Amino acid sequence: MNLLKETISKITKPDEKAREEARKKWDGLLKPIGSLGVLEEITMKISAMTGKVINHFDKKAIVVMCSDNGAVEEGISAAPQIFTKILAESMQKGLTGVATLGKFTNTDIITVNLGIKGHIDNPEVIDKKIADGTKNFTKGPAMTYEEAIKAIETGIEVADQLYAKGYDILGTGEVGIGNTSTAAAVVSGLLGLEVDTICGKGAGLTEEQFIHKKEMIKKAISINKPNKDDPLDVISKVGGFDIAGMSGLCLSAAKNKKPIVIDGFISSAAALCASYLNPYVKEYIIPSHLSAEPGARYVLDVLGLKPLLTLEMRLGEGSGCPLAFQILEAAEYVLENMGTFDDVSMSSSSLIDIREK
Amino acid sequence: MNLLKETISKITKPDEKAREEARKKWDGLLKPIGSLGVLEEITMKISAMTGKVINHFDKKAIVVMCSDNGAVEEGISAAPQIFTKILAESMQKGLTGVATLGKFTNTDIITVNLGIKGHIDNPEVIDKKIADGTKNFTKGPAMTYEEAIKAIETGIEVADQLYAKGYDILGTGEVGIGNTSTAAAVVSGLLGLEVDTICGKGAGLTEEQFIHKKEMIKKAISINKPNKDDPLDVISKVGGFDIAGMSGLCLSAAKNKKPIVIDGFISSAAALCASYLNPYVKEYIIPSHLSAEPGARYVLDVLGLKPLLTLEMRLGEGSGCPLAFQILEAAEYVLENMGTFDDVSMSSSSLIDIREK
Repeated sequence: MNLLKETISKITKPDEKAREEARKKWDGLLKPIGSLGVLEEITMKISAMTGKVINHFDKKAIVVMCSDNGAVEEGISAAPQIFTKILAESMQKGLTGVATLGKFTNTDIITVNLGIKGHIDNPEVIDKKIADGTKNFTKGPAMTYEEAIKAIETGIEVADQLYAKGYDILGTGEVGIGNTSTAAAVVSGLLGLEVDTICGKGAGLTEEQFIHKKEMIKKAISINKPNKDDPLDVISKVGGFDIAGMSGLCLSAAKNKKPIVIDGFISSAAALCASYLNPYVKEYIIPSHLSAEPGARYVLDVLGLKPLLTLEMRLGEGSGCPLAFQILEAAEYVLENMGTFDDVSMSSSSLIDIREK
Repeated sequence: MNLLKETISKITKPDEKAREEARKKWDGLLKPIGSLGVLEEITMKISAMTGKVINHFDKKAIVVMCSDNGAVEEGISAAPQIFTKILAESMQKGLTGVATLGKFTNTDIITVNLGIKGHIDNPEVIDKKIADGTKNFTKGPAMTYEEAIKAIETGIEVADQLYAKGYDILGTGEVGIGNTSTAAAVVSGLLGLEVDTICGKGAGLTEEQFIHKKEMIKKAISINKPNKDDPLDVISKVGGFDIAGMSGLCLSAAKNKKPIVIDGFISSAAALCASYLNPYVKEYIIPSHLSAEPGARYVLDVLGLKPLLTLEMRLGEGSGCPLAFQILEAAEYVLENMGTFDDVSMSSSSLIDIREK
């Protein structure tokens, strides 16, 4: 609990002076004010995080939190549970979606075992196992309050270490069969929204299975009665280790004043928890894409975050992050390298029309 | 007229067999069916264009069509007309937004002078000047019917040559102060939509100037009475050389069975004209982003095209294309390199759940 408390207490508001300096730099570039839209906004947001006008992302990583969910025994997922283990072990072999996109974008993939069922004998998967999966949330809490804290603190530790190693930006990823259900339960628990509104078909359920999935989530909420004013209570009762771990990543990013890119719906549930623990956390979060899961947009709206991409992706793993990294790197490159009005040797008076309106 | 007629006649429908082969390849990858959303769709679309499952974009270019618009004398633009010339001459110096993004993404910028006012003494700007800007469309046709054809054919020629030189993909760009007005007039003329619905503030007009801009576009339409069943008539009466030239780029892409990425609103007006000349053209077009100009979404909807990005950009120049190239290259890389179900040595029967639902 000490690390969590300490981390929350160390998070401060972003640097508005750096944001303004970045805006001034954009406004001096050879273009109408604001015409690069979100490219401008997002670099200014990063400037406010780091305190620097220009930011480079030479060392990038996506942390993939892997864990199993006890509720999978209720038939809430189209994929068999063994896939959590298979995908986790396939990460460092470069076989998964996020690993492939990571390679393309020069991004390291850090795979963390927070609670994969069974034994993993692979030194490339960081062993931080808390339990052999969570418990079935339709019958009681998914984990203890202490386990939730431990999973969050593991996320904080992992990210703290990566930032200390010189990583400039991180992305959140997860592998955990059944985690669109836990994410829906967490979001429903925290926002007080109906399960029917936010729950999607995940990796691909039949209509009948989809109805069953929603019933199971409702049951989990009605049995456990998560306290919406306590994100730790919500995570522990109806969440998963992966969501808790990714919340920790977000908290660490905010503490370290570094940007963190979140992936889709499950990542956004983690970002929501972290932002409820300290409202400044969302100032350090960049949403990569709008997931095809219906709940995603509600979470991003509550957090006031605009996704960079809308590509109807629903793979998870952190697969949206590398695509967002590309955009962020392009935006920073433009801010640093684009020509200015001075470069074209125009007197500032003759440009007043285009620059000030 | 021969080149235009010949080009239109040579455009054929996409290769559905190649599209299906690409789909099969995606469906064998280590992920739920369809879970990479638009990344999957867009590569399948490109496969259907080229007839190849995997496509590389080793040589990329954005063609920036530059020309002036006579109607600028009516005060329809926030930027002074001289900016067309300044920006065109800044392209090959790497100072502009699209040039900077082009450099970041290893994309060549091809600058074409179709009708910039005044003399340009710069061998790096390809001289295809048709006239010293178009005429003021509030007083009569912007150009003759023959000039419109010449501008389109110039676009076809330029793209034909680039594809012949080995370029794998092109993007459309433009520089032409006042061209959000000509684009709005063309779109209004072709789609029969109200000017008020589709016209935006461009680079940044005051409210009063914005009202005036819309009045001028309405006047251009009422005076010239463009025939909505003849895109050449619409372009010649209320369009610009840049729009015509970009239509030519789109026609050439479709003829050469190569992908062409379009930028924002002005590019979309050109894509609309080209698609009206041959309905298969839109099968070869990839929309990079949804421009902040309100008319953009109507055009893309009519063409059935979904933008890859929504970044509230309104710079023009082709600046959305490099960002789209990044996504396309990432998508092709995943299709080519991601692991398969076979790679994880699972029997196909145990995977039936995840793959078939």
